[in-house]
Amino acid sequence: MSTTNNDKQFMQAAIDMASKGMNSNAGGPFGAVVVKNGEIVAAGHNEVTSTNDPTAHAEVVAIRKACEKLGTFQLDDCEIYTSCEPCPMCLGAIYWARPSKVYYACNQQDAADIDFDDQFIYDEIGNGIENRSIKFIPLMRNEALQVFKDWSEKIDKTEY
Amino acid sequence: MSTTNNDKQFMQAAIDMASKGMNSNAGGPFGAVVVKNGEIVAAGHNEVTSTNDPTAHAEVVAIRKACEKLGTFQLDDCEIYTSCEPCPMCLGAIYWARPSKVYYACNQQDAADIDFDDQFIYDEIGNGIENRSIKFIPLMRNEALQVFKDWSEKIDKTEY
Repeated sequence: MSTTNNDKQFMQAAIDMASKGMNSNAGGPFGAVVVKNGEIVAAGHNEVTSTNDPTAHAEVVAIRKACEKLGTFQLDDCEIYTSCEPCPMCLGAIYWARPSKVYYACNQQDAADIDFDDQFIYDEIGNGIENRSIKFIPLMRNEALQVFKDWSEKIDKTEY
Repeated sequence: MSTTNNDKQFMQAAIDMASKGMNSNAGGPFGAVVVKNGEIVAAGHNEVTSTNDPTAHAEVVAIRKACEKLGTFQLDDCEIYTSCEPCPMCLGAIYWARPSKVYYACNQQDAADIDFDDQFIYDEIGNGIENRSIKFIPLMRNEALQVFKDWSEKIDKTEY
């Protein structure tokens, strides 16, 4: 797929966010921007260690900011530019936000080379719920199903 | 694995959060609590539609609150009780937070039955980066690698 000078400019902004976050000791060396209609809507960098938030990866931060700014929980017609291939958590966040495209710079192996090893998590997801290193234990399904039933029957709900 | 009355009490709290979130129109019918040393540290429910945050799933909300309260980006020695098997995003968040165990009530199929279909995202993750319904496009890897190199050489970094 061909990329344009605009794409490069947006990716440079994501890379600059990665540098900025790292140099300010906000967190790991990762940055991302969300673009809509040729303009940057929001930018984020990793903030895990400075905000004590393990979910504050660059993509999640940028997605949250973009949604807040746009007043929506969906990033239709937006593109995400991220300085590194998303980890499984960010990949999940991207699928829930539903942007039209994702541009990424470094890849998963590059991240593993500096000790950010997503492969372990990818493997764990693939292992299935009964074979994970963190134990997943089923409990009280029937009680919880009642809430799902209530949701099904709820009239004034916002679906997503 | 055997479960105790305490476990049931904590799961009931997660289910109650699910009800509460749904009934207050905060978001979907999902709740979670984080427990440490036999006490609930934080509780969360889905807030996607009310806060315009596609990442505000119950587990993510509970993990963020628990980390904030405990002043850490790791949930060592904590257990998470969630009213439904985590989606891929939440599973990723759980692996980054590293609790010791996860108890879940409803399963993935139960969620799909009320139109929260995580299977699509699980499939997309498994498809590999070149075969996804959202296009993933590589761009400017070399430029971004410089930031990773800077990180490797950075002396005052907090690893995670």
